[in-house]
Amino acid sequence: MRVDGQPRRTLWPSATHDALFVIDQRQLPHLWQIARLDSVDAVFEAIRDMWVRGAPLIGASAAYGLALQARDDAADGALRAAAVRLAAARPTAVNLAWALQRMLDRLLPLPVGARAAAAWQQAAALADEDVAVNQAIGLHGLGLLRELAGTRGGRLNLLTHCNAGWLATVDWGTALAPVYQAQAAGLDLHVWVDETRPRNQGASLTAWELAQQGVAHTLIADNAAGSLMQRGLVDAVIVGCDRVSANGDVCNKIGTYLKALAARDNGVPFYVAMPLSTLDLAVRDGLREIPIEERSARELTHVRGRAADGRWVEVQIAPDRCAAANPAFDVTPAALVTALITERGVVAARPDALRALAGGSA
Amino acid sequence: MRVDGQPRRTLWPSATHDALFVIDQRQLPHLWQIARLDSVDAVFEAIRDMWVRGAPLIGASAAYGLALQARDDAADGALRAAAVRLAAARPTAVNLAWALQRMLDRLLPLPVGARAAAAWQQAAALADEDVAVNQAIGLHGLGLLRELAGTRGGRLNLLTHCNAGWLATVDWGTALAPVYQAQAAGLDLHVWVDETRPRNQGASLTAWELAQQGVAHTLIADNAAGSLMQRGLVDAVIVGCDRVSANGDVCNKIGTYLKALAARDNGVPFYVAMPLSTLDLAVRDGLREIPIEERSARELTHVRGRAADGRWVEVQIAPDRCAAANPAFDVTPAALVTALITERGVVAARPDALRALAGGSA
Repeated sequence: MRVDGQPRRTLWPSATHDALFVIDQRQLPHLWQIARLDSVDAVFEAIRDMWVRGAPLIGASAAYGLALQARDDAADGALRAAAVRLAAARPTAVNLAWALQRMLDRLLPLPVGARAAAAWQQAAALADEDVAVNQAIGLHGLGLLRELAGTRGGRLNLLTHCNAGWLATVDWGTALAPVYQAQAAGLDLHVWVDETRPRNQGASLTAWELAQQGVAHTLIADNAAGSLMQRGLVDAVIVGCDRVSANGDVCNKIGTYLKALAARDNGVPFYVAMPLSTLDLAVRDGLREIPIEERSARELTHVRGRAADGRWVEVQIAPDRCAAANPAFDVTPAALVTALITERGVVAARPDALRALAGGSA
Repeated sequence: MRVDGQPRRTLWPSATHDALFVIDQRQLPHLWQIARLDSVDAVFEAIRDMWVRGAPLIGASAAYGLALQARDDAADGALRAAAVRLAAARPTAVNLAWALQRMLDRLLPLPVGARAAAAWQQAAALADEDVAVNQAIGLHGLGLLRELAGTRGGRLNLLTHCNAGWLATVDWGTALAPVYQAQAAGLDLHVWVDETRPRNQGASLTAWELAQQGVAHTLIADNAAGSLMQRGLVDAVIVGCDRVSANGDVCNKIGTYLKALAARDNGVPFYVAMPLSTLDLAVRDGLREIPIEERSARELTHVRGRAADGRWVEVQIAPDRCAAANPAFDVTPAALVTALITERGVVAARPDALRALAGGSA
């Protein structure tokens, strides 16, 4: 994707393989700032504190984290310990564990002396794979959007939640990949952007990246999504996901479930863009089994933004000592999902379809 | 209700009948500030800019606005013009028009010279009536909560949206009146408070007033309500309303509809506290006919709160020049409403029940 017109990925290694560069997403939309991460600890902190976020991007970042470890000490114990540490940075998205496992599977059979070079190669391969996967998701999603545009006529209005765009991946995005492909194909479209409380990823990231790509969009409160659907102003919902269970339940950013309920109540298709790396067949019942990260109360009681004088300021919006609960994800039951858009095509959120899909990857 | 332990109403006239005192609710939860309104213009501005808000409270405020007009010029034309102006301050809640009509009905038949004194009396009567109505809603709601507590056992977990509490009325609140009655009756209860974007009335007002009354509560993002219900953590939802149509559709703060959908999906009762003054039998189909106020984009792109140094600061959370849509209310179809709690008892959100209820008021 482009930033100020220049093509960019969201992360890249230093030429000398001693650091990973990422966008410090905590500074968006007001500041474009690149962070240099040169240790497992730095990568751990960047994932935990959400300098980088989004299931595919934290997977790719963690892979480079292991490469940084391999540079320093590539023994089995050191690599395994680093993988355990990185996997613990965020508990919900499965891509993190998936990417780390892919790295270990590649590195551990090699002689220790060959691991560092292989680790950087493998991390780069995972990043390239993410780009290819998202591009494929975009093209499969484009097919759906073309169909919708054909039946509806006029401008297509999509609604998305959180940021499952370029910034959540290495490039293209998952939920937004079809939007960018549709833009390239000349479809007339507009995106309703849920602000996505409490961290406002819609307001700060999705609105910013859509503006950078020149895609028409309008920010809304999460509360407004149902009303827009009741009034016929939404043709389809497209979201990303952090983990999809064997029965097709979709774990994604908190609030996704409410949008899915509104979509069903109003006959609006509800699509989930899902790289296969996000499918977790070991979880049979998403609603009961996926661990939900509980984040700090301060994300609710305080809001950080840019004051009139240009400084970043955090303001308190709740009373002093107000208790707050902050689950970061929810689970949308498979029955509410119209279809999953994967790199291998569009499939139903059903156990048989998901097993067939995963079987094809063996 | 009590503030710092002292019993308080949310508005009161000056002893000399030359002004109305209100709480400037824009300063909560960080500052307790009383505003003195001494003209129709001042009352209009306080309603439009939400120094006072909540359907019952804007009705009572507008009634005192007409009393201020009657003090200056009580001729038919002057009173009617002031009523038209005040009614235009907020378009959605019907209580505003209802209270103004009650005032005109009382004043216009009187000799002009008798109108000023009658106006202050009538406004006071409307305020007292609001208190009595809400107290009755509280007692009828208490019956429902007792039943629920009986079937569930243990602490009762309620969820509310926006502020339909003491601060939205002259006293007691509508949706929160049953909570305060239940507290007085010794029921063990806890309230989940939706923060209610974009204006954060849950975070700034509901959390504040529940803390003042000593009611256990936890702030949540609007997005979290569905997840809590899925996990069995909500025993009932209670909200207020701004207008209820003849078919039982409930117009209330934006996002109410999404909570109602989640309640139905999880078998959680969804109650609406409705003073009869909020019923609008002239509207047959709430979803199609109730005008929805569209508020400023800035309510979404910027957030106002207290900075670490104690100053109020407004911070920008969205990109520069970001378009935003901000409908202030939505309409929850009658089919999603378990029951309406009115001052005359608990009734179904059905045309026949509502006609019978209104007939009883003639």
